[in-house]
Amino acid sequence: MASRDRTIETLIERLNRLPGIGPKTAERLAFHLLRVDKDEALQLAKAIEDVRRAVKNCSMCFQLDASDPCGVCSDTSRDQAMLLVVEDPREVSRFEEVGYRGLYHVLQGRLSQLEGIRPEDLTIAQLLKRVDNGTFAEVCLATNPDLEGEGTARLLADKLSQFGGKLTRLARGLPAGSSISQVSSSILADAIEGRRSLS
Amino acid sequence: MASRDRTIETLIERLNRLPGIGPKTAERLAFHLLRVDKDEALQLAKAIEDVRRAVKNCSMCFQLDASDPCGVCSDTSRDQAMLLVVEDPREVSRFEEVGYRGLYHVLQGRLSQLEGIRPEDLTIAQLLKRVDNGTFAEVCLATNPDLEGEGTARLLADKLSQFGGKLTRLARGLPAGSSISQVSSSILADAIEGRRSLS
Repeated sequence: MASRDRTIETLIERLNRLPGIGPKTAERLAFHLLRVDKDEALQLAKAIEDVRRAVKNCSMCFQLDASDPCGVCSDTSRDQAMLLVVEDPREVSRFEEVGYRGLYHVLQGRLSQLEGIRPEDLTIAQLLKRVDNGTFAEVCLATNPDLEGEGTARLLADKLSQFGGKLTRLARGLPAGSSISQVSSSILADAIEGRRSLS
Repeated sequence: MASRDRTIETLIERLNRLPGIGPKTAERLAFHLLRVDKDEALQLAKAIEDVRRAVKNCSMCFQLDASDPCGVCSDTSRDQAMLLVVEDPREVSRFEEVGYRGLYHVLQGRLSQLEGIRPEDLTIAQLLKRVDNGTFAEVCLATNPDLEGEGTARLLADKLSQFGGKLTRLARGLPAGSSISQVSSSILADAIEGRRSLS
């Protein structure tokens, strides 16, 4: 009895499958796509197709890129002795923004009992091989400062215990611009634990 | 210096142009579309293309549909003597859900000084012609119960003053399931003003 056109229903259903997009938002977006310039809507469709046609995981670092090896791995001007190990391809651009100029290794997730993610689901074997074969002076474990990120870092540190170079972890402490009276006690505990010498 | 792939950037920019989708959400959605089954992502692209290829405004009632006249206008089993005037094509499916079985006229907006929407920007001329030529026993003005919806209804009532049938407006009052101690005073004022006789 729904008199709504089947094509519109299909678009709403498809949008509704995106993470964080509920039925109401999906409907709003669908009608937006019907209202805007046809070209505007079709450009979005094309962008989705392009990205799925062109973008693959880099076979070296496993970040997402249209070329393989990716732009970072093939850029010889970058510091070839520094490797930053991150969980997710998205995090790469965060580090790029702050001027990091070494190489990356994307784990494609982190260990999680809850989500059933085991070491073999991540690109850990490839990381170990890369470190073994490479000439890295430093490997920095840049997994997230939470339970699962820490657990993943601990496992990696264990597996890389034979690594001859420097094995590091991102600093934990007070977030820039925060106020000591407002931060959580675990942040403050990190800040005390990781205090730096000024002398 | 952004090492992120151009194709991914384009998709993020395109998603970011959608209403209510900020840069962070756009990035999340883009990486979701990169992570899911290729087919899943391409189905969304196809749904957007399909909808823009197939769906047009019905030349009678101006709702969005793949056929013209639309499914409602061409359904002779519906009550041809009842016309419901709504602002937006989306509202049609709300009325369908609650079992309305007459015809519609979609204004494609409402008068708004703030947004510079004038009577000639809406399908008012077409509505007047339809009512003139039609055999409607009732025209119900179902614009929204807010300032601009009321203003639009007032203009329409004025223009339809020569209409021989019943001219109605949706009831205003307490929303079902609400509590009198919680509703706003304007809702309560509507409820008193519009009280119905039980005898």
